[in-house]
Order: sequence, then structure tokens, then C-alpha cells
Amino acid sequence: MDAATRAFSRQGYPRANVRDIAAEAGITAALIVRYFGSKEKLFEEAVAHAFDLGRAFENTDKSVLGRAIVAHLFAEPQDSDLLAMLLRAASDPTMNSRIRRLVQVRIFRPMVKLIGGDDAEHRATLLLSLVSGLWLYRFMLPLKTLSGQVDANIEEEVAILIQRFIDGED
Amino acid sequence: MDAATRAFSRQGYPRANVRDIAAEAGITAALIVRYFGSKEKLFEEAVAHAFDLGRAFENTDKSVLGRAIVAHLFAEPQDSDLLAMLLRAASDPTMNSRIRRLVQVRIFRPMVKLIGGDDAEHRATLLLSLVSGLWLYRFMLPLKTLSGQVDANIEEEVAILIQRFIDGED
Repeated sequence: MDAATRAFSRQGYPRANVRDIAAEAGITAALIVRYFGSKEKLFEEAVAHAFDLGRAFENTDKSVLGRAIVAHLFAEPQDSDLLAMLLRAASDPTMNSRIRRLVQVRIFRPMVKLIGGDDAEHRATLLLSLVSGLWLYRFMLPLKTLSGQVDANIEEEVAILIQRFIDGED
Repeated sequence: MDAATRAFSRQGYPRANVRDIAAEAGITAALIVRYFGSKEKLFEEAVAHAFDLGRAFENTDKSVLGRAIVAHLFAEPQDSDLLAMLLRAASDPTMNSRIRRLVQVRIFRPMVKLIGGDDAEHRATLLLSLVSGLWLYRFMLPLKTLSGQVDANIEEEVAILIQRFIDGED
């Protein structure tokens, strides 16, 4: 899955190649196809895997999840950028509806479930929007304030905001 | 400027054509080149124009700016999508540094100036990230919660958040 994530984000969805992904993962292309069914399904799994908050933070107490998400977001630059790839794919009209569905089903809904409680959809919407915007201005179009080592005050403020979205406090 | 904005967001930067933009605006291509210098400069002005909060809300009292920005964001879909175009251009390595500079100089700095006061850079960072994320999930990859008529509770919550970023309250 990590090999697929790297390949998709390095080469973009259209150019990424199941054979190369298989080679990088040390397995055969036939095995990938048998297991996932197609490149499209593999892409979907790679995205779901990368954005799966439940999996990424399964050992994290919900009361400190805001801080954990921020620490992850402001960690060292990663060698894969699935958000950039999602956005590139989304600007292709033939891919857009597929990507929309992917975001709704594999990213948004699990986040709503993780947050839980009243208004979970509203709060997940705000959480996803804020985190995606920060990601955008950290990795795709870096603002100075979000580049490299981020100021502790920004980290603190973002952690508080995210925790509020999770807890539903005002 | 509206003709340029429409052309750039409909056709993307590489394909948009100064001659067509001039025709749509009812002027000559020579006049555009004389006035702006180049297609690149015209693009920069179109982006700065579209994201110029000071201009867009010049008659809005700063104490209700949060609500005004939200009303604008959640208004009817627009026929131009400069954020999508910025992101598409940003994923082209030859354009990326130019777009980054454009965002920093023409969008971020004026926003910092408009907000003013201590920590204006931090607050502008959060404001720009949240608004861009919401824009993303309203127009580029629409989530159900941000499609069409947005729930009044979300509008209210976003307005309060944005106003906090502007005022610097906690």
C-alpha cells in the first residue's frame, strides 16, 4: 500500500503503473490485480489508507486527537502527497465524480463516524476543510507561516480548533 | 478583468488566450498587452482581483466581516473558479514557484494587512486555510454538507470562526 501511495503521488494517477507498484512492493502485478481488482480500486484503497484517521490514530485517546492530528500534519514533509494527487485527478472531468464519491465514502464518512454525536457531519466538514486548507498551504502552495518548522502558537491554535470540532464544544 | 477571470478559470492558464479575453472584454489584445505587459501579468492581476478581500468588502464593517465572507462563499456557484485554476497551475512544476509568490504577495499579505494587529500572520494563515478548504469541498470536490444551500448552522459556525480569526479573540 505504501508503494502504491508513493507511485500515485509521484507519478499521478494516469501515469502510475501497476507493474511498477508491484515491483516496488516485491510482489507480482497479477497478485495486485487478483487482490484489488484494478488500478482504480488500488488507487481508492491507497487514498482510503492514507486518510484513515481511525487507523492512523487508533491508539490515540480521543481527548488528545486534535494535538495528534496537528503533530502529524506539521511533521517532516512526506514523500507522498495524496491530496495534491486527488486535486489533480479532480480537475480531470472524467475522474471528478469518482473522486468525489471516494472523498465522501472513504474519507468523510469514516471521519463522521469517528467524531460521532450530534452534528458530527457539520463538525467533520469543518475539520476536513481546515486540515485540507492547511495541507494545501504547507505542501502544495507553501506559505511562509506553514513552511518547515511551524510556530508553536499556530500549532497550539490549530490543535485547539481541531479538538473543538471533534468534541463539539463551542 | 472579469473576462480574464472567466477565461482563465474556464480554459486554464496555459490555454487561455489574450486575444479571446480582449474580444470578450470588447477591447484589443494590443491594449491588454500595453496595459498589463503580458498574459502572465494579466493572470496575476485576475487572481489578485478575485481574492482581494479589501476591495470585495470595502464597504463592510470589520465587525461583521466573518458573516460577509461566509455569505460570499456560500452564495450561488460562480462561473469562475480561480482556486481550481491556481491549484492546477501549482501542480505544474514550472509554474509552482510563480504561483506560490503570487499567493504570498497578492493574497496573503493584503489579508494580513486587512486583519492587522498582533499575530495577524497567524490568523490570516488560519483564515485562508479554512476558507480555501471550504471552497475546495464546495466547488472542486463537493461534499454533500457544502453543496447547494448550506445548512444555517454550518454558515453560523463558519462565520463565528472567521470573525474570531479577524478579531483575534479566543
